[in-house]
Amino acid sequence: MEENRKIRVGIAHGDISGIGYEVILKTFSEPLMLDLCTPIIYGSPKIAAYYRKALELPANFGIVASASEAAHNKLSIVNCVDDEVKVESSKPTQKTAMAALQALEKAVADYEGGFIDVLVAAPMTLHLLQSDEFHFRACPEYLENRLAQKGDALAILLGNGLRIALATEHLPLREVAASLTVDLLKGKLSAFNKSLKFDFGIAAPRIAVLSLNPHAGDNGLMGKEEEEVISPAIKQMISEGVQCFGPYSADGLIGSGNYARFDGILAMYHDQGLLPLKALSENSVVYTAGLPVVLTSPAHGMACDIVGQGIAREDSFRQAVYDAIDVYRHRVCEKAIRMNPLQKQYYEKKDDSDKLKLDAVEDDA
Amino acid sequence: MEENRKIRVGIAHGDISGIGYEVILKTFSEPLMLDLCTPIIYGSPKIAAYYRKALELPANFGIVASASEAAHNKLSIVNCVDDEVKVESSKPTQKTAMAALQALEKAVADYEGGFIDVLVAAPMTLHLLQSDEFHFRACPEYLENRLAQKGDALAILLGNGLRIALATEHLPLREVAASLTVDLLKGKLSAFNKSLKFDFGIAAPRIAVLSLNPHAGDNGLMGKEEEEVISPAIKQMISEGVQCFGPYSADGLIGSGNYARFDGILAMYHDQGLLPLKALSENSVVYTAGLPVVLTSPAHGMACDIVGQGIAREDSFRQAVYDAIDVYRHRVCEKAIRMNPLQKQYYEKKDDSDKLKLDAVEDDA
Repeated sequence: MEENRKIRVGIAHGDISGIGYEVILKTFSEPLMLDLCTPIIYGSPKIAAYYRKALELPANFGIVASASEAAHNKLSIVNCVDDEVKVESSKPTQKTAMAALQALEKAVADYEGGFIDVLVAAPMTLHLLQSDEFHFRACPEYLENRLAQKGDALAILLGNGLRIALATEHLPLREVAASLTVDLLKGKLSAFNKSLKFDFGIAAPRIAVLSLNPHAGDNGLMGKEEEEVISPAIKQMISEGVQCFGPYSADGLIGSGNYARFDGILAMYHDQGLLPLKALSENSVVYTAGLPVVLTSPAHGMACDIVGQGIAREDSFRQAVYDAIDVYRHRVCEKAIRMNPLQKQYYEKKDDSDKLKLDAVEDDA
Repeated sequence: MEENRKIRVGIAHGDISGIGYEVILKTFSEPLMLDLCTPIIYGSPKIAAYYRKALELPANFGIVASASEAAHNKLSIVNCVDDEVKVESSKPTQKTAMAALQALEKAVADYEGGFIDVLVAAPMTLHLLQSDEFHFRACPEYLENRLAQKGDALAILLGNGLRIALATEHLPLREVAASLTVDLLKGKLSAFNKSLKFDFGIAAPRIAVLSLNPHAGDNGLMGKEEEEVISPAIKQMISEGVQCFGPYSADGLIGSGNYARFDGILAMYHDQGLLPLKALSENSVVYTAGLPVVLTSPAHGMACDIVGQGIAREDSFRQAVYDAIDVYRHRVCEKAIRMNPLQKQYYEKKDDSDKLKLDAVEDDA
């Protein structure tokens, strides 16, 4: 960390018809959180005040014009949305969806300007904004388009020590099988391996790959993707030095407890990753790897059915803040470790006379 | 129960290259199990003796020529397979698969002959037996064909208080979405409702229906099956008096803990049901409803990777015995309750002058 300052956590307020403000304000009602980081909400001071009052939350916040003015021991909020936006019902509208997107956009601009270090996004929905130009299904997909290349982003679900990456994400189940290709899985395995190393500090990660079909296809009786797509991808990645294993029957790996022997699990689709995660963890988080900015979100949705009741639990949101900070620290640390490497010394092992090869360069993906 | 005798539990030994005998013999090493039921293994005394010796299990069993000779305080075994069948490796072969099928077939014949009350099947695989005539993917599908009509069987996963039925079972994931129709779901909901009443003794069951797609389709952004298939099926079944709700995002229902508010959950496909079950329960069981015989199995597979090590846990198999007995008792009890019903008295409530309608007949599906 430059200047030895606290990590600045940008928070996109999400859709205001959901439980976003409730979990944000509950999280930062705890003064210790302000010792850990400098939180800056991108949102609406009016709406924040509305929820603070309605739910009788003890959180204090200061309104700032820009993240650069954020106080170090206070929750700050930057107004990003039209004052016209109101909490009118516990259903998202085009206005609330747009307000979520505007806040996210402002947070990204501040990240690019160097004013925040990591980004935590409260739940939002994008289905009301769909048009010919706008076709993003979820926030990570939008940010991938905004900050990186298509295919760079990788969703990694975190909770209770589990790290489950998704080969496909917000896809209708009907399209999952046809979307899986050897190249796609190779790319995901490579990105996952890289993230486990550099974002989580695991020197030599071991990855379990789940099967798509019941009983891992039972030798082709219940699907061919294991033989035709998943196994070849695993084989090729092993030859490229990635330690990956499988494909394992998903319920078998979870049921036997053997998942605990791996540093990461690659699931083939949304529910296959989210279901065991949420069953095994009380505070699940989605981390989006592969972007320049560290992006995390609580793994729950907007939970509109319980808005305004004060019963939303902030555990996942708080954990999303923790996880973003952890990944940021790992990245800084791994960068420092690799900044001035000694030349690695390779031995030529092809025959009996081992030779030191001083000209070899490590290609560490 | 006729004659006030113990329930006779037929046990199909499954594939001998798996952990079947280990979990069977461990279960009945406990003398209290013999107070609960009269167990009869359909299998091979030679193989049973082999595993008893190799794993040093304290189980005793007596060889009987037929289930009618089974002693009441002893584990009995009926020889069903060729003495040539040997445990040669920890992989199933066509011979071991055939031996599993022969044992199952003999157990079914004895059920039809009235010699056993319930059937518990140890894990087996059918992929080695596939031919033009034989095309069953799993044991319940085979028994459905043998004892009932296509579409009658319904897999219900049991564990930790959960009851999760599967709308589709041993299907490649690629085929799941297209297989879901309003009629299929209506049939499954009706069968599930009936089973919860008569097999589990729940008078007015409440069923949660899971969505197929991520985020319950997010209003069509991630799939249309919720709008086009699942919701219409739910609506129609409600009008037929079945209390069903949803479709709920699968990970949302599990993550929120709201699944505990329902008597049953209908999952759309194999992993969607098995994953939360196995994550939340240590001893999961598959009960196949809709057959004349009560059929249960442990929800684990053959676990060939740990055969012969003595580390297989028998909890799921023991629970499968318990669950089979429970369902059998519920069926007997519900039958007795309904045997001589008083005429139900209906009131005509359409106007202010309530009238007793003595001619109405309850149509209790």
